Amino acid sequence: MARELHVEDLTDLARGAALLGTGGGGDPYLGRLMVEQEYLRGRTVTVIGLDELADDALVIPTAGMGAPTVRVEKLPTGREASLALRTLEEHLGRRADATVPVECGGSNSMVPLLVGAQLGLPVVDADGMGRAFPELQMVTFGVYGMSGSPFALTGVHGERGVLDTGPDNRRLEWLARGLTVRMGGTASTAGFAMSGAEVRRTAVPGTLTLAFRLGRCIREARERHRDPFQALTALFADTMYERAETIFRGRIVDVERRTTGGFARGRAVIQSSSDDSVLELEFQNEHLLARIDGKIRVVVPDLIAVVNAETAEPITTEGLRYGQRVGVLAIGAPAIMRTPEALSVFGPRAFGLDVDFLPMNDLT
Amino acid sequence: MARELHVEDLTDLARGAALLGTGGGGDPYLGRLMVEQEYLRGRTVTVIGLDELADDALVIPTAGMGAPTVRVEKLPTGREASLALRTLEEHLGRRADATVPVECGGSNSMVPLLVGAQLGLPVVDADGMGRAFPELQMVTFGVYGMSGSPFALTGVHGERGVLDTGPDNRRLEWLARGLTVRMGGTASTAGFAMSGAEVRRTAVPGTLTLAFRLGRCIREARERHRDPFQALTALFADTMYERAETIFRGRIVDVERRTTGGFARGRAVIQSSSDDSVLELEFQNEHLLARIDGKIRVVVPDLIAVVNAETAEPITTEGLRYGQRVGVLAIGAPAIMRTPEALSVFGPRAFGLDVDFLPMNDLT
Repeated sequence: MARELHVEDLTDLARGAALLGTGGGGDPYLGRLMVEQEYLRGRTVTVIGLDELADDALVIPTAGMGAPTVRVEKLPTGREASLALRTLEEHLGRRADATVPVECGGSNSMVPLLVGAQLGLPVVDADGMGRAFPELQMVTFGVYGMSGSPFALTGVHGERGVLDTGPDNRRLEWLARGLTVRMGGTASTAGFAMSGAEVRRTAVPGTLTLAFRLGRCIREARERHRDPFQALTALFADTMYERAETIFRGRIVDVERRTTGGFARGRAVIQSSSDDSVLELEFQNEHLLARIDGKIRVVVPDLIAVVNAETAEPITTEGLRYGQRVGVLAIGAPAIMRTPEALSVFGPRAFGLDVDFLPMNDLT
Repeated sequence: MARELHVEDLTDLARGAALLGTGGGGDPYLGRLMVEQEYLRGRTVTVIGLDELADDALVIPTAGMGAPTVRVEKLPTGREASLALRTLEEHLGRRADATVPVECGGSNSMVPLLVGAQLGLPVVDADGMGRAFPELQMVTFGVYGMSGSPFALTGVHGERGVLDTGPDNRRLEWLARGLTVRMGGTASTAGFAMSGAEVRRTAVPGTLTLAFRLGRCIREARERHRDPFQALTALFADTMYERAETIFRGRIVDVERRTTGGFARGRAVIQSSSDDSVLELEFQNEHLLARIDGKIRVVVPDLIAVVNAETAEPITTEGLRYGQRVGVLAIGAPAIMRTPEALSVFGPRAFGLDVDFLPMNDLT
């Protein structure tokens, strides 16, 4: 059912999006402030369900692109993503009926809300990743046959580009990433334009609402002095993610990070607070793999979230610091993200990891 | 006067274009073969003068982009530049009335001929460089107020992009170069769309005809056992370049080359065949500077051409080899390329050289 998003819900939504960001996707903080600014100007965001889209509606997903650790050389004006959508509309010769997140995890949860508020477009309660991923071809839209082209990018200097690589979404990622690096490391994007029927067929449903519920769950557990880890496990049990588990608690004893080719890559090591065991994380913007004492415990596309040990506040990979006390959550990916087609696009081998995907349950 | 280009003139035109390439712009050989293929298919090229353009005609310059020493990973289909022009037409919502070379020097002399033959478009006898330059903002079109945006690029895999940086042609170069690198080091381009009146105001006139005359001059001198160096000096005296001079003859004793950021940069040293003097060349795709015994003798935008010592066949910077016997020609740039506006865009300091421009006459 179409509903107006309350401005006071944005903080919960951003917190939940950070959790689904699995360490990446960028901090939603700046994006949330920008959406709140739109509310102060009297604009609002309307969220609609997948079932409310007309089959022939034009839906244009919007997002940001770039490595979160890149130092911003020039602050965005906040209009870049709307300009990207307008650029794609001009290219297509047709106005969009709605926008939708490409990625519900991290800062990309906020981009479509900003666009929706600025342009008066409804935002579809769904996304193309069900979490965060580092590359643009890693979307369920593409897994299930949709092309990212034509694909519009805008930079903070007002520069614009439209790329077209036909059905080849990997080549699109390659070109768009190169352009993003030259735009200063960050760009706003509009691509994977689809009909309402196509979004319904290829998107992960309900993920904006899920992000809101997750964020609210963490806040309420804090306010009511309950264990947020237990509350999150209970909440996920009631979703298509089905399973969430606290697999580790401890202190960060090592972090390595480097930015190469537009990505933040690295690893972190956590020492258990209760015994001698060690958890090791590998990430490329997002967490990809968690090993406990050398044995794989969770692997992409299942979600790995590192959170504050007390408050369960999500911590991004760039926020990881030596000495932090953290909890590590493992969350099962929805079924639509675990098909053979999906695993070939964002399973472990798509990230250069020499392991097959096994669901977290089978790795216990 | 509009005239059909004879296929047998292409070899002379390519040779002359290589001379005007001042060591860069790429070897016109492959491009010439492609144009000849079009003639074998029954297509022809019509060349028109600047005075034949209607004031409100739409002229779309076409070119290739990329460093000549990049190893080609996939051969072009030969349709990339026509696709770039069509892509820009679609973007503008209007069909072109003619194309024109961006760069009469090197392989970019051939690109508009290929487009003209394939699409049945006349090719304007003029260009935007009067030679070859390494960067796309280094055109008289831009010097005299024209924007390169919107700017279309196509790659050998069929990928397409349209960039728009408003009036900022340097930023356009930066983005287009990045995209070209990701397209495999080479791309075909269409940009700087202009009216007939604007081309007349901003282009270097008659340079396709000049390239043809230069190539024919070298060939005929050979056939008639005359000195090609003297013949070239006599020919240039009759053009807007006015002055050409053989400033050095000798043997190459050192060449250094590296490809960085999409450019072929380097230097070469020539030992005189008659005395102890040494000529040193610096290049970035094209020759930028010639020093004789440490003293600057010619500097960009004046032209420096290295040719075979016997035949005067032009040699590109990537063709320079240890032990080659060569002659070095200095050619004065036309007046339109020596204004303060022009020098701020493609004078020595635009290439990071810490010298002011002085015409070759004043450096003798």
